[in-house]
Amino acid sequence: MIIKVIGFSYSTNTLRVLSCLNELGIPYQLDAPANFAVTKEEDYLANKHPFGKIPVLYDGDYKIAESRAICRYLVSKYQGKYNNTILIPNDIHEAGLVEEFISYEAFYYEPPASKIVYYELFLKTPESEIVKQALKEINKVLDVFDKLLEGKEYLNGGFSLADLFYCPCAYYIYSTHADLWDKRPNVKKWLDRLRNRDAWKMSLEKKNKL
Amino acid sequence: MIIKVIGFSYSTNTLRVLSCLNELGIPYQLDAPANFAVTKEEDYLANKHPFGKIPVLYDGDYKIAESRAICRYLVSKYQGKYNNTILIPNDIHEAGLVEEFISYEAFYYEPPASKIVYYELFLKTPESEIVKQALKEINKVLDVFDKLLEGKEYLNGGFSLADLFYCPCAYYIYSTHADLWDKRPNVKKWLDRLRNRDAWKMSLEKKNKL
Ligand SMILES: N[C@@H](CCC(=O)N[C@@H](CS)C(=O)NCC(=O)O)C(=O)O
Ligand SMILES: N[C@@H](CCC(=O)N[C@@H](CS)C(=O)NCC(=O)O)C(=O)O
Repeated sequence: MIIKVIGFSYSTNTLRVLSCLNELGIPYQLDAPANFAVTKEEDYLANKHPFGKIPVLYDGDYKIAESRAICRYLVSKYQGKYNNTILIPNDIHEAGLVEEFISYEAFYYEPPASKIVYYELFLKTPESEIVKQALKEINKVLDVFDKLLEGKEYLNGGFSLADLFYCPCAYYIYSTHADLWDKRPNVKKWLDRLRNRDAWKMSLEKKNKL
Repeated sequence: MIIKVIGFSYSTNTLRVLSCLNELGIPYQLDAPANFAVTKEEDYLANKHPFGKIPVLYDGDYKIAESRAICRYLVSKYQGKYNNTILIPNDIHEAGLVEEFISYEAFYYEPPASKIVYYELFLKTPESEIVKQALKEINKVLDVFDKLLEGKEYLNGGFSLADLFYCPCAYYIYSTHADLWDKRPNVKKWLDRLRNRDAWKMSLEKKNKL
């Protein structure tokens, strides 16, 4: 049975899962809910996502929510099955360093990045205090990444699940704040590498406008 | 060589790592930096944590930062070596559901919980807007958990790394907002189970005051 993703083609969290599926070469279909209101209904909360979010993935009868949890599941189950792409290295010490970058994403990058995407691009309130504060924060975070990426193609040297996690928000924020990347040579080259990956481009093919 | 944790005994993120070490039965020593200022110095930023945070763990020459990344590393390397405690199940589908709860922690629980611990208990500003907002948020989150825990001892049935991640902030917030737990029978019983685990109690033995 083909893997089914419940989500919206333009959502950052959905794009995270789609690019993981594409990186691992896993066939899937994307099913969009009728609208966001559906995700707040009793049935959705009880059976799909208790916090009323997308994406949710079905692998046969098995259901799993939360983009990063979904990606980890896909790696555990399918890495190496359809192609040779390695998103989490088998070596425990290497995997640990990928985990470090995954944690930086969740705790330093995602909080400001998701606010910019949501308040500036989705709600169209670019002048809000929240966006201004988030832009200040992400400036500092990207300074750190510009150092961490010195002499490296990807965060941990080779491409990994960590890099993939950063791409969806970067893709959107770059559309209105290209300078954040352009003035930092290492993060700029990194973003270019991420955006040029076939799996990422495939993820955008069926994207509707935000 | 014994595992070394750089951190403060009272820090929530350090306690997360200590309780993971204790759950897995791994011997370790805790080395506290002289103060928080040290973690902002050039040497610390370059060699220990690029965002100037604790905890950081050394396993011989191998260094890893970020509490949740550290715990994952410890599970990958040491689960089953010193005792029989399983924090991430071997079954891929079960592990996926643990990942779901780990993601709920990072994205719905940690943001308000860490703000309450930091602004109310550490900075002693219980009346600040940030604390009030965070209390509202955590109320909603605990409502969801009270439902998710119905008929279960722990989030995924058996104890797992996910439960362990929630404990340090809950422990502190309970000291000033017991009602948040007491009025929700399932989350209250859950917290009692977490606080009564030997590994958690051992983690607190050498704790200094916040
Ligand atoms: N931590 C979740 C976040 C999911 C999320 O926030 N999804 C957004 C769309 S990108 C959503 O469902 N928003 C609806 C809402 O928050 O009401 C994940 O990684 O999947
Ligand atoms: N995401 C990090 C957070 C680490 C963190 O915020 N640690 C606090 C102590 S509990 C800290 O170092 N604070 C100092 C600061 O932020 O300047 C982790 O999980 O380890």
